[in-house]
Amino acid sequence: MADSRDPQDTPHDETDFPYGELDVPRGIGRRGFLAVGAGAMLCTIGGKKIALTKPGDAAKADAAAAMVMRPSSVPAKKPATGVPGADPVDKLTFGTPDPQPGCDVQEYWIQATQTLWDIIPSRPRRDQWMGTNLPGPSVFRACVYQQMSDGFAEPVGPAAMPGPILQARVGDVIKVHFRNGLPEASNQAVTMHPHGVRYNPEYDASYLGDFTRAGGYIAPGEEFTYTWECLPESVGVWPYHDHGPNHVLNTFRGMFGALIIRDRDEKAPDVEQVLFFHQMAPPITGLSRNYEAVNGRAYAGNTPTIRSKVGQDVAIHVIGMDNDFHDFHMHGHRWRKDGTGIFTDTPSLGPNETITARFIEDNPGRWLYHCHVFSHMDAGMAGWYIVEP
Amino acid sequence: MADSRDPQDTPHDETDFPYGELDVPRGIGRRGFLAVGAGAMLCTIGGKKIALTKPGDAAKADAAAAMVMRPSSVPAKKPATGVPGADPVDKLTFGTPDPQPGCDVQEYWIQATQTLWDIIPSRPRRDQWMGTNLPGPSVFRACVYQQMSDGFAEPVGPAAMPGPILQARVGDVIKVHFRNGLPEASNQAVTMHPHGVRYNPEYDASYLGDFTRAGGYIAPGEEFTYTWECLPESVGVWPYHDHGPNHVLNTFRGMFGALIIRDRDEKAPDVEQVLFFHQMAPPITGLSRNYEAVNGRAYAGNTPTIRSKVGQDVAIHVIGMDNDFHDFHMHGHRWRKDGTGIFTDTPSLGPNETITARFIEDNPGRWLYHCHVFSHMDAGMAGWYIVEP
Amino acid sequence: MADSRDPQDTPHDETDFPYGELDVPRGIGRRGFLAVGAGAMLCTIGGKKIALTKPGDAAKADAAAAMVMRPSSVPAKKPATGVPGADPVDKLTFGTPDPQPGCDVQEYWIQATQTLWDIIPSRPRRDQWMGTNLPGPSVFRACVYQQMSDGFAEPVGPAAMPGPILQARVGDVIKVHFRNGLPEASNQAVTMHPHGVRYNPEYDASYLGDFTRAGGYIAPGEEFTYTWECLPESVGVWPYHDHGPNHVLNTFRGMFGALIIRDRDEKAPDVEQVLFFHQMAPPITGLSRNYEAVNGRAYAGNTPTIRSKVGQDVAIHVIGMDNDFHDFHMHGHRWRKDGTGIFTDTPSLGPNETITARFIEDNPGRWLYHCHVFSHMDAGMAGWYIVEP
Repeated sequence: MADSRDPQDTPHDETDFPYGELDVPRGIGRRGFLAVGAGAMLCTIGGKKIALTKPGDAAKADAAAAMVMRPSSVPAKKPATGVPGADPVDKLTFGTPDPQPGCDVQEYWIQATQTLWDIIPSRPRRDQWMGTNLPGPSVFRACVYQQMSDGFAEPVGPAAMPGPILQARVGDVIKVHFRNGLPEASNQAVTMHPHGVRYNPEYDASYLGDFTRAGGYIAPGEEFTYTWECLPESVGVWPYHDHGPNHVLNTFRGMFGALIIRDRDEKAPDVEQVLFFHQMAPPITGLSRNYEAVNGRAYAGNTPTIRSKVGQDVAIHVIGMDNDFHDFHMHGHRWRKDGTGIFTDTPSLGPNETITARFIEDNPGRWLYHCHVFSHMDAGMAGWYIVEP
Repeated sequence: MADSRDPQDTPHDETDFPYGELDVPRGIGRRGFLAVGAGAMLCTIGGKKIALTKPGDAAKADAAAAMVMRPSSVPAKKPATGVPGADPVDKLTFGTPDPQPGCDVQEYWIQATQTLWDIIPSRPRRDQWMGTNLPGPSVFRACVYQQMSDGFAEPVGPAAMPGPILQARVGDVIKVHFRNGLPEASNQAVTMHPHGVRYNPEYDASYLGDFTRAGGYIAPGEEFTYTWECLPESVGVWPYHDHGPNHVLNTFRGMFGALIIRDRDEKAPDVEQVLFFHQMAPPITGLSRNYEAVNGRAYAGNTPTIRSKVGQDVAIHVIGMDNDFHDFHMHGHRWRKDGTGIFTDTPSLGPNETITARFIEDNPGRWLYHCHVFSHMDAGMAGWYIVEP
Repeated sequence: MADSRDPQDTPHDETDFPYGELDVPRGIGRRGFLAVGAGAMLCTIGGKKIALTKPGDAAKADAAAAMVMRPSSVPAKKPATGVPGADPVDKLTFGTPDPQPGCDVQEYWIQATQTLWDIIPSRPRRDQWMGTNLPGPSVFRACVYQQMSDGFAEPVGPAAMPGPILQARVGDVIKVHFRNGLPEASNQAVTMHPHGVRYNPEYDASYLGDFTRAGGYIAPGEEFTYTWECLPESVGVWPYHDHGPNHVLNTFRGMFGALIIRDRDEKAPDVEQVLFFHQMAPPITGLSRNYEAVNGRAYAGNTPTIRSKVGQDVAIHVIGMDNDFHDFHMHGHRWRKDGTGIFTDTPSLGPNETITARFIEDNPGRWLYHCHVFSHMDAGMAGWYIVEP
């Protein structure tokens, strides 16, 4: 990430971890924050209700999360009994599924890690849509899922937001060796919770208080292997994200990614792009202003520039990853709305919901895509789609 | 409700009615209220625009509603003429429909009533998801639809939120004998307006100013019988709610419920649950903080715990009942999105819109369901789904 | 518009243009503004991030927009080279499409113009739903698309919000002769960007900074002819709106309208109505309170009153045109949700998304339609639907 930073972007000591008070520009009161529609949030962590309204407030939530003790039920197999609401199903244990006959294990090594992340990496910081330069700083300390080589030997490419795309076909199992590489001092237990695929409770990857199983609380330095099944009704594109005790903050910091599950004989599109639409608000980033981001970046030229050629089969999958609803507009194109007989060029989506724009490309040129919530596109939720003849 | 209250929950004199200023904790300024995203609202009542931003503000709206006079058009049959916008259709009168041949009258006796309602009835107040205890108080004076035995002789079970589920099949008529059992002193006219079924204007149950018909203004102590037809396109699960002069506040206080209309030969699912997703904000409850509720309760262990067994046909219907959009995530499951060919595990819904998750159960264990708007799940909009092997 | 104004509605000098500070009632602080949920917005114009939170703030955005220079790429044909992110596709040029054989050119002359627009034109200002009178003022200086006769000779009817409905069939091209009739002094370049139809980059009608083509920056006094193709997948009802450098503000001021594209042999419904659901907030109108509008009007009796007769084929198309999500409820009716097999009476829609309620009328009387976001219907987003026997 070194080349994407400049001096004004590094107010934070590299040795810090994000779970302390960030160095936030002064004078950014709640007024300015709310004025840009940034998301005041309420978090429930360790029994404390914590309101996040301004830069730095995340530190309160992190402090609460750091005090969440390992649940008595973790490691699991030890039944959750004698706690309010305990049920016989909490004593059940579950095996690890195998692939269907003739199908495969798709194996991934993934580590939760911190990284300095630049929301507007172009220099000068540029909004190519409006043809203007933007002020900084735009770097914050993100938490992301980083793909590793076998045995966590070394990173596969730089740490990035979103995490790696996990791919499989119906009948396969996806096996994720997950390691919490966050600093010990943060004491942040995290997980990797998938949508769409089938998992039994051992692999739900969710912190559930007294009912948490082993995969729902992975402390710094610990590892866990998740195994998930790809059913016929798993076909589609789905998000994964943190579901530990501090899941909202850590998800909003970048702990999310996508799974793509296809039928066994399904042809992949020629061009395929997953776009996460998500807010990056001052309480999360410690920066002074709100960004509406696509895959962690804001403003055309920084957000993903998608490329295709006339005649190609193009699929763009958009997933919401914040508290807001969005809709996806692509200039110069239209397609059938997912699973229906009608045409659209601006379908809506909610948090963790996926919509897909799929079409055979027939319209060369430079096109804008953007969220059609006007205040979102104006705060950076836009990008280029370039079609060659 | 006695066993769900404790001393700190009864700041209100039982003889009070909710239409006065509630005893609200001091020092909860607008800042804290907005900081948790609670819904500042604008109500239009009796010609007054009233902004609700903090505990106690509902009293202003109630006072305005109490001054709404009986419309000159009620009781109806008396045409609305000589008023701005009057139209010949306002002179039309309409009969009471009968069931189709071979079909039935589904008859209900329902009374609008006040009840002390505990948003977190567990003691200690418990968020089982996060494994923590919560502060109180959590009781407020709700308004709900209570099912009564024939002739309003006596209540059928305790007053609860939501009101009773009304069930019928295509060809039936639903006949609701409705009584406004709210205190005379409140002077709150209320109604019972259904979605999905067919009704003529006499049974629309909506206050419409000068064009109100008899069923649109039921004053305290009054009764009215609504008759609604179940058409083939009424098949589905639909909300009902107050649509009187103060409908927004009274709906937000708990005056809502569901209708389930099936085809004549349609098999009911083995397990069926209706979940209302709705905010319970300080201006409505008089409590100091905002809750995001499911069926009037907040936090897993208080919200409905749904139970099923492997092999059962399960249907979960989710209906929005506030100003917000939500989406419904169920861990460990996925299903076809309503009326389409695609799979989902997180469909979106708007106010008074219904989505259904329906599947054959195959995945035993303890599962979390929740709204996937992160700030909503963190404020209580979550619950348990327990599947026995 | 003369008869829709009264003295208290004309605080603005007719010779003013809306791009100066409006004469806003004093004492309307941010508190009152936020209390009614009105939309604080962030605009990105000319590289400046401008927060709009109160009446008059739009002037800052307008001033920024007035300083946006003509892009070096306009008029086009001159390739955008030597600018960051330039791509070979930016050098491509594109011809003007013709209709398919046997199909037609649908030709329109449309001018962007200012008009004084009354949000509540009834006198006294009336909310017929609640049967009450409303305070003023309710007039502001809007920007709209006005239909003109051939050669811009003269207006075809009064300037109104929304702009004219453009109609065509599959295989046709729509040719819009567009003229920016806004005051020279405003220096507001505007455009006319359509959804649904096919256009090549010359006719995208979007300001794109250094990559803007001629149709994306039409300065006051200038003209441009857009040509758009109607494909089989263009069938439906779609919005058009401004997409110039100040598109958010100008769209929110009224620069929007609809296209209806039908199959060649498709029968038009007997009754067809397009309803735009959109907020009219103090930063845009300069008025002291927020309105939730339908086609620029607020409150039943001011918003469109739709009329039909039993037996008619009715289509009501609802399009979102602000930052919010809405849903559309029609009393006494239900229909198949767009492109699916399920029934609804309250479908959701996002910004620039269209939903359609279509049914054969069978239920005479006076009916209410409204957004079912409770706070929206209470702020004016409601109207009448009158069905004759």
